Amino acid sequence: MSVIYDRVALIGLGLIASSMFWAMKRKGLAGEVTGYARSDATRETARRIGLCDHVYDSAAEAVAGADLVVLCVPVGVMGQVAADIAPHLKPGATVTDVGSVKRDVIDSVGPHLPENVHFIPGHPLAGTEHSGPESGFAELFDQRWCLLVPVEGSDRAAVDRLRQLWEGIGSNVQEMEADHHDLVLAVTSHAPHLIAYTMVGVADDLSRVTDREVITYSAAGFRDFTRIAASDPTMWRDVFLSNKDATLEILGRFTEELFALQRAIRTGDGDHLHDYFTRTRAIRRGIIEAGQDTDAPDFGRKKSGP
Amino acid sequence: MSVIYDRVALIGLGLIASSMFWAMKRKGLAGEVTGYARSDATRETARRIGLCDHVYDSAAEAVAGADLVVLCVPVGVMGQVAADIAPHLKPGATVTDVGSVKRDVIDSVGPHLPENVHFIPGHPLAGTEHSGPESGFAELFDQRWCLLVPVEGSDRAAVDRLRQLWEGIGSNVQEMEADHHDLVLAVTSHAPHLIAYTMVGVADDLSRVTDREVITYSAAGFRDFTRIAASDPTMWRDVFLSNKDATLEILGRFTEELFALQRAIRTGDGDHLHDYFTRTRAIRRGIIEAGQDTDAPDFGRKKSGP
Ligand SMILES: NC(=O)c1ccc[n+]([C@@H]2O[C@H](COP(=O)([O-])OP(=O)(O)OC[C@H]3O[C@@H](n4cnc5c(N)ncnc54)[C@H](OP(=O)(O)O)[C@@H]3O)[C@@H](O)[C@H]2O)c1
Ligand SMILES: NC(=O)c1ccc[n+]([C@@H]2O[C@H](COP(=O)([O-])OP(=O)(O)OC[C@H]3O[C@@H](n4cnc5c(N)ncnc54)[C@H](OP(=O)(O)O)[C@@H]3O)[C@@H](O)[C@H]2O)c1
Repeated sequence: MSVIYDRVALIGLGLIASSMFWAMKRKGLAGEVTGYARSDATRETARRIGLCDHVYDSAAEAVAGADLVVLCVPVGVMGQVAADIAPHLKPGATVTDVGSVKRDVIDSVGPHLPENVHFIPGHPLAGTEHSGPESGFAELFDQRWCLLVPVEGSDRAAVDRLRQLWEGIGSNVQEMEADHHDLVLAVTSHAPHLIAYTMVGVADDLSRVTDREVITYSAAGFRDFTRIAASDPTMWRDVFLSNKDATLEILGRFTEELFALQRAIRTGDGDHLHDYFTRTRAIRRGIIEAGQDTDAPDFGRKKSGP
Repeated sequence: MSVIYDRVALIGLGLIASSMFWAMKRKGLAGEVTGYARSDATRETARRIGLCDHVYDSAAEAVAGADLVVLCVPVGVMGQVAADIAPHLKPGATVTDVGSVKRDVIDSVGPHLPENVHFIPGHPLAGTEHSGPESGFAELFDQRWCLLVPVEGSDRAAVDRLRQLWEGIGSNVQEMEADHHDLVLAVTSHAPHLIAYTMVGVADDLSRVTDREVITYSAAGFRDFTRIAASDPTMWRDVFLSNKDATLEILGRFTEELFALQRAIRTGDGDHLHDYFTRTRAIRRGIIEAGQDTDAPDFGRKKSGP
């Protein structure tokens, strides 16, 4: 594939930025990639492992002359970062982001950007429970979806070019409206994460079952929750605070259903339980048929010796 | 390894029974293995794939002369099965089970068994979301725990022999008291399963997000829930109904915590969220260090093409 942007700047050098870097390099999609992260430690790690062609000590330097700027920081600091870089953006550049929430990012980033740049929010639906500059890998986005959320008046050509980049990175691209994005993600990601965090916290807190027992006997369902609940605390704090309404709406529906199932358990209503558990299997089948997960038992994971 | 029981009878021929069969064969732990399942279809499948040395059309025939009888049926029917086989048990035989709940199984099976057999309830903490006679494999129990729950007056030699079998099958064996077992499992398995079923049901029900969207954009956390929520409805209905008290206790704690986190989201209390999410990471580390899960990102699962 050929170069899509001559110069790309990655602001924030964690899991998503580093995976984008390796994916762009794999296909030669960017002429040059510059980078910036907040801490000395992260910038040094990036230099050591060759993440970015050049790592700068300021965001201003990193974005200077860039045709594409990708904000890869937690959603709670997107606005501040946008304010920092705004005076240094090249006219005609595209600014995008990878934040897990879209309405809040649009509201906090948009007002800072000059008229002469294209702002095209985005969100790659791919991640792992690991974070930081060393956790990235080129294949992260392969066959995963990337949602682009053009704002009012977004330039068609600029959107199409960004779409090309994500397709080159390996993703399927879809456009979606911001509020709908936030609701869909509240269902498929944000509420499940909060629930997993909650359940792991409960297990940790119980006085009659020790942490040692929880850890030892975790194989039976719980350990899947612990993987989700090992995700970065800062990233997730920001996600919940900035997608408050949709997350709370879904959690409200969730507790309503949970109470109905609890009542069925209490009253011994086996039919209610059996019907509910039968219905949920169809969704799993759909996900496997859509190629969004493996059908291998237990995700096909390898046992790891103690 | 040498033969531990001359004749083993498996009652119920699903995931657990078939995995036990292949694991016993792998190491030659049983002289002969007989089997019985309720439906013609399952018995025919078992005969076709060589599951059991001999599959009988009645439980009575299958258990005749067996030194070890393993009840591998849903917990709700354990009592009925015990009543059926009781008159046909060989004196001195050991009867065990693999049910996911122990107090209820002890109460429903125990009274049916004659004085001259050893009843030693058990529970291998291993499973997948698949079920039926063709879903089993010899490695299922490798490095996983098997909990034995001896009842009052259990014969030491009989318990030790059953322990040897499970160790030969590949498990680590631990003894535990029945009520404590049920509480530990409510935390590590039963409550997480109900929560996953609930969340998947909520997603399925939402009118503003289509099932197609849920399926397509499921990569981000939700699809782990769908795997758990694809487990057998009958097995899980029985688990919840027979471990009612412990499950409801844990779910009560869970909703209490969930409400506290929802309030933190509503009031914008980022510190509460961040602290909570930091604490839960330690449990994950413990599980990985204990060899109970892989540290590979995303369980190391393979992408499956559409
Ligand atoms: N992880 C996922 O599963 C996933 C999936 C899709 C989208 N996302 C979104 O992608 C974004 C990045 O997530 P990630 O997983 O890549 O996070 P990460 O691995 O934790 O990396 C975050 C990066 O942001 C930098 N940063 C934090 N605050 C900053 C600030 N005030 N100014 C400049 N840089 C700052 C960090 O720098 P230091 O290292 O110096 O602190 C780090 O380089 C988030 O918005 C997240 O919502 C994540
Ligand atoms: N799956 C897990 O993850 C897991 C883990 C640990 C323990 N367990 C426990 O293991 C037991 C079996 O689970 P599984 O996953 O192996 O289930 P499964 O694959 O669904 O198999 C259940 C077997 O029980 C038979 N059965 C059902 N009702 C019966 C009856 N009234 N009389 C005789 N046979 C009957 C079924 O026969 P048909 O096929 O003819 O209907 C089938 O062969 C359950 O008690 C469960 O709690 C399961």
